[in-house]
Amino acid sequence: MGDRRIPEATVARLPEYLTALVELAASGVATVASEGLAQAMGVTSSQVRKDLSFLGTYGTRGVGYAVEELLHHISGLLGLNREWSAVLVGVGNLGRALASYGGLAQRGFRLAALVDADPAKAGTRVSGVEVEALEELPRIVARERATIAIVTVPAEAAQDVADRLVDAGITSVLNFAPVHLSVPPHVRVRKVDLATELLILAYYENARSRGEPHDAPAGVAEHARPVAGSDAS
Amino acid sequence: MGDRRIPEATVARLPEYLTALVELAASGVATVASEGLAQAMGVTSSQVRKDLSFLGTYGTRGVGYAVEELLHHISGLLGLNREWSAVLVGVGNLGRALASYGGLAQRGFRLAALVDADPAKAGTRVSGVEVEALEELPRIVARERATIAIVTVPAEAAQDVADRLVDAGITSVLNFAPVHLSVPPHVRVRKVDLATELLILAYYENARSRGEPHDAPAGVAEHARPVAGSDAS
Repeated sequence: MGDRRIPEATVARLPEYLTALVELAASGVATVASEGLAQAMGVTSSQVRKDLSFLGTYGTRGVGYAVEELLHHISGLLGLNREWSAVLVGVGNLGRALASYGGLAQRGFRLAALVDADPAKAGTRVSGVEVEALEELPRIVARERATIAIVTVPAEAAQDVADRLVDAGITSVLNFAPVHLSVPPHVRVRKVDLATELLILAYYENARSRGEPHDAPAGVAEHARPVAGSDAS
Repeated sequence: MGDRRIPEATVARLPEYLTALVELAASGVATVASEGLAQAMGVTSSQVRKDLSFLGTYGTRGVGYAVEELLHHISGLLGLNREWSAVLVGVGNLGRALASYGGLAQRGFRLAALVDADPAKAGTRVSGVEVEALEELPRIVARERATIAIVTVPAEAAQDVADRLVDAGITSVLNFAPVHLSVPPHVRVRKVDLATELLILAYYENARSRGEPHDAPAGVAEHARPVAGSDAS
């Protein structure tokens, strides 16, 4: 079950499958039916069967999916069996927040380097990592063998930073700047918009204030997760 | 086209339809075919037709959807015709980053109040807003008529903060703390996990390093956006 093409929407759900499976494994559950996974994830069981069939996993009739085996498989696909070195550019509030966010290290992401254009920040330390100058980027990326970068600079600086990252050899960019980045075909950009989540909550608040029915049971905590779509610009 | 139940996955795509439509309107495009919207969003055109039919919008055969009309309709559903007052609890790096994030105000979200448990922070100002004490929460929520709260406190403080917010009358919570929050049935929680995005990028880096084909054209900038699913815990 190796070189199949897995649809983008299924890939985007893999982190959530991982979370559900980690919790099942921790609870000592050995096998899980598609219905059980579906409930944990808030999707339909036919979606679960479809997703997992893309991974080449079909479960056993009347038994379900082997939790540890599936967990191992998805961990492998997500590269959790190795450490990823990421370079973060833009040591402002958001950059600092990400640098101190424990969740990254838990998933095998090491913020190998923090980079900022402000000379006054170079040499200072954030969460134990020294901030380095933007001009050093090519050397830093090579030194850390980094392929992933996180961009937390202001919108007007983001394209210049993206160009520098691409020149330095970065092939995956997580962009928090509220701007569309142009990159060559071999580079993958994901854009995170912190306001999107609030808009979705506003939809439900709005429906509530109009007294309209709203889908999905209230009180069920939702797990926001990303699904890739092409940037509209 | 009012009181239909709109599926949660469609709701989660509304902010992205909005972005695409705003750009089309800005470019002077009057009507758009489902294929055009599909391309802008990275979904199939049948998905676009399905989503918009849930909104009660069917377009005109051979013409497509009226951009301004659809934009107006979706803006209304998302409550963009009104201002939302949100209360942010936890004025650390992430809280500060959100407070200074221009994207919120653009979408009609006013961070009406910043709250922190640390007495040393009370009275200081962040992005022009004075930080208030956690004990003041009931009074603050009433004063601002806020229904939405953003939680950016450490994991160990998040449940206590959530309880206080619910007691104060908050009905929608955007939770950045890496922990599951228990809330009563009438309260909606969305959890944002900043590592999820990186995991998805890691999947593609991993596939690349194995020399496997990976779905979705490389070089297409992706717009990360959330789709609701129930929390696994």
